[in-house]
Amino acid sequence: MDLHVTLAGSGDLTAQIYAQLREAVLDGRLAGGDRVPATRELATSLRVSRGTVTAAYDRLLAEQLLESRRGSGTFVAAGCVPPARSGTARGRRTRPGAVTPTAAWRSPSAAPRVPGDAAYDFSVGVPDASLFPLATWRRIVSGTLRRGRLAPDTYDERGVSRLEGEIARYAGVSRSVVASADDVVTTAGAQQALDLVARVLVEPGDVVAVEDPGYTAAARLFSTHRATVRGVPVDGEGIVVDALPDAARLVYVTPSHQHPTGVAMSRARRIALLEWAVRHDAVLVEDDYDSEFRFADRPLEPLQSLDRDGRVVYVGSFSKSLLPGLRVGYAIAPSSLTPALREAKRVTVWDGDAVTQRALADFLAEGHHAAHVKRATKVYRARRDELLRGLAALEHRLEIVPSAAGLHVCTFLRDGDLDDLAVADRALAAGVFVDPLSPRHLERPTRHGLAFGVGGIREEAIGPGLAVLRDVMREVRGEVSAPRPRRRAGG
Amino acid sequence: MDLHVTLAGSGDLTAQIYAQLREAVLDGRLAGGDRVPATRELATSLRVSRGTVTAAYDRLLAEQLLESRRGSGTFVAAGCVPPARSGTARGRRTRPGAVTPTAAWRSPSAAPRVPGDAAYDFSVGVPDASLFPLATWRRIVSGTLRRGRLAPDTYDERGVSRLEGEIARYAGVSRSVVASADDVVTTAGAQQALDLVARVLVEPGDVVAVEDPGYTAAARLFSTHRATVRGVPVDGEGIVVDALPDAARLVYVTPSHQHPTGVAMSRARRIALLEWAVRHDAVLVEDDYDSEFRFADRPLEPLQSLDRDGRVVYVGSFSKSLLPGLRVGYAIAPSSLTPALREAKRVTVWDGDAVTQRALADFLAEGHHAAHVKRATKVYRARRDELLRGLAALEHRLEIVPSAAGLHVCTFLRDGDLDDLAVADRALAAGVFVDPLSPRHLERPTRHGLAFGVGGIREEAIGPGLAVLRDVMREVRGEVSAPRPRRRAGG
Repeated sequence: MDLHVTLAGSGDLTAQIYAQLREAVLDGRLAGGDRVPATRELATSLRVSRGTVTAAYDRLLAEQLLESRRGSGTFVAAGCVPPARSGTARGRRTRPGAVTPTAAWRSPSAAPRVPGDAAYDFSVGVPDASLFPLATWRRIVSGTLRRGRLAPDTYDERGVSRLEGEIARYAGVSRSVVASADDVVTTAGAQQALDLVARVLVEPGDVVAVEDPGYTAAARLFSTHRATVRGVPVDGEGIVVDALPDAARLVYVTPSHQHPTGVAMSRARRIALLEWAVRHDAVLVEDDYDSEFRFADRPLEPLQSLDRDGRVVYVGSFSKSLLPGLRVGYAIAPSSLTPALREAKRVTVWDGDAVTQRALADFLAEGHHAAHVKRATKVYRARRDELLRGLAALEHRLEIVPSAAGLHVCTFLRDGDLDDLAVADRALAAGVFVDPLSPRHLERPTRHGLAFGVGGIREEAIGPGLAVLRDVMREVRGEVSAPRPRRRAGG
Repeated sequence: MDLHVTLAGSGDLTAQIYAQLREAVLDGRLAGGDRVPATRELATSLRVSRGTVTAAYDRLLAEQLLESRRGSGTFVAAGCVPPARSGTARGRRTRPGAVTPTAAWRSPSAAPRVPGDAAYDFSVGVPDASLFPLATWRRIVSGTLRRGRLAPDTYDERGVSRLEGEIARYAGVSRSVVASADDVVTTAGAQQALDLVARVLVEPGDVVAVEDPGYTAAARLFSTHRATVRGVPVDGEGIVVDALPDAARLVYVTPSHQHPTGVAMSRARRIALLEWAVRHDAVLVEDDYDSEFRFADRPLEPLQSLDRDGRVVYVGSFSKSLLPGLRVGYAIAPSSLTPALREAKRVTVWDGDAVTQRALADFLAEGHHAAHVKRATKVYRARRDELLRGLAALEHRLEIVPSAAGLHVCTFLRDGDLDDLAVADRALAAGVFVDPLSPRHLERPTRHGLAFGVGGIREEAIGPGLAVLRDVMREVRGEVSAPRPRRRAGG
């Protein structure tokens, strides 16, 4: 019988034996009816205890990959199913499919630009996971995963969770959002909060106004709900209220740190927008992304806390301040909408991950989140200062858009003939990932630009990265001949 | 200053001090400008190290609830925001709201029946969390939460995750589903899988056929996508194919263990349904819920593996076999649909919880899931046998619907005059929670019945619970006078 089992290190030996035997069955090295070694025999040859081998066999027996025949030993099960393997020629695939999705889903949106292995990564919207207090989080998650703490007590009799209470406090304290626990609906990230909002508010054909340039993922989301999405220009004070279409039923804005320009919506503009919403009986969706990281002394009040009329839905997320993989966001809505939002969540996803939600409630209640944001803000502030210094040296080419919060800085290209996509592509070839502005436009871009994130790059790499970018921009302008492609030494 | 801090046990003392001070600020016992004790002073009075107190103060300073004035001490911040407290009169609420949801969301669906503190809980669809190998899961989650394992490597270059590969193997081995990793789209539970399917396949007004009685949450979901939902009767072989509306674009079925009757769809019916789908160019959505727990020797092949045409979307979930709070499900779809499903997931929720997904991939790869299902099946089988024995004693009142899988057994009331809701309500008053059949109907119920789940009740409680139910049914029939309500001794 062709069976080699190799044990590495002191990891879970049972798991290793199990995995290798399963692999051998699934890829056909062991065929149905083959006899596998007796547990005693295999244990001796591998120098492990017999119990270790027996435990592995038990799992394979449970999976019906092995079968045991009384008195004659253990065998590979005869009827065991051919393998479904990922990424190999052997994999059985489903049939290509006789059915197609509806028109809206036939042409997927453009793949996002990714940094790949760029040496200088100015990705936007990516926090630095290494700043996260992982040991604390692990301890809290471990505590949550103890028997007795897993009873289905996530929600109280009103259907409100402990996390929703903690988020109400957090948003109240850190953002002066006006909310009690009942006003908070937790979601799997801000994107799901927007989805629930769209679901309960948008009828097919309704006009939804979004910032242009703006967060295109939100625009795409609203259009999949069959909204007519209209882009509205942004100036130095935020969305241009006078340019809002009268028919808009819903307006999506990012007042703290406009995405992608970084502009903070002025207080006057906030008031004007609220007044506009009252006159037009519209809902304002305030996406307060990136607002945890503030670099000015006195942040402006959110639309939500200026709202006297109950027409703002405030959307937040912990994806930037925790780890991107922990998907927790929330909507804080007027009480005329929260029952529908809760119901929409229940109908469409039931609920998010209970363990993560409970752990986050503890993390907030014990003050770890505030402490982490404070520490991380210090690091991001240093990187941002370094970035602003470096960009100042490029000022004849790049106009910095002032901002007071968030993990990226936006610039406009001063040269109206330059194409930001071309610059970004050329920069990436030279090892620098920057985010071009024009793909963030719904309509034809008014100005080209580049955005620089500080979550994915160390402070000391910022200067050198910008130096490479400077060379790239000179080259794209035709001021110098193309620099020789960098090769590894001896290559 | 009115400040009492009490430390309990040896838990995180910093967290305790933090939480009590924060509470004092938020509920107004400490007002803006109040001086808090010096760290040395408080440390002495609490008999903890000064560092413990300093760490708590640091968190409060980070949250700007305290402020430190050079040379004069630490104070409650002057501008600190009034509290947003859950469930108290003090809580600031959002304004009632000037905006209302769209018509579909104005009348929430009926609240689900809940067992409360029923002594005998025959809830349907609830697994027994105490059977789950929590220590193993905790170890795997802890390993996932280690630095270096959190890099964003969840997906490979094709956008396929390791978990999707493991699910393809799992579904192939345990259910003979034909799939490679590329065909699997993970979701936050089966409900989200259905939501994505509806989103990419249903246009407003499309006819969607569902089983009647059936899984009403699915029917509700399809109708929120503006489908015209039509109920189709179910007989002893499953959905009645001849009764399907010709216009149905999508048919939702639960062939392994029809929800709620428990009928397994016959092989002939499966073939007929597939042929019907080809003739009518329809999509079949096969929800294989509860199929892990099988009590017959040879389960029928899923529709998915009988499908030669690529028109079946197979939906599964780990909510029953893991913990209900860990929301992981999946759709296995023809390749003509998977890009749209992935895109719909990306647009609407971005992604699920990365830690849970990675941990589950390890849990499957190491064979723990198969071993757990085997152990749990043994326990559920014993409970189910006990339930069937007990129901046999009630045979003159209840007709048992044969089934071969799943965590509940359905019965019909033999007495056509009895109302299952009335029986269930009366039973609950007597301490027995059972699930009435009639609310699971879209149309007027053809037969009334009761379903009995075995996930929430111990084996030895089943007999006594059914004995109480027998008395309740006699009483509802008017055969005896109402038993005196049970009171606590001495009450």
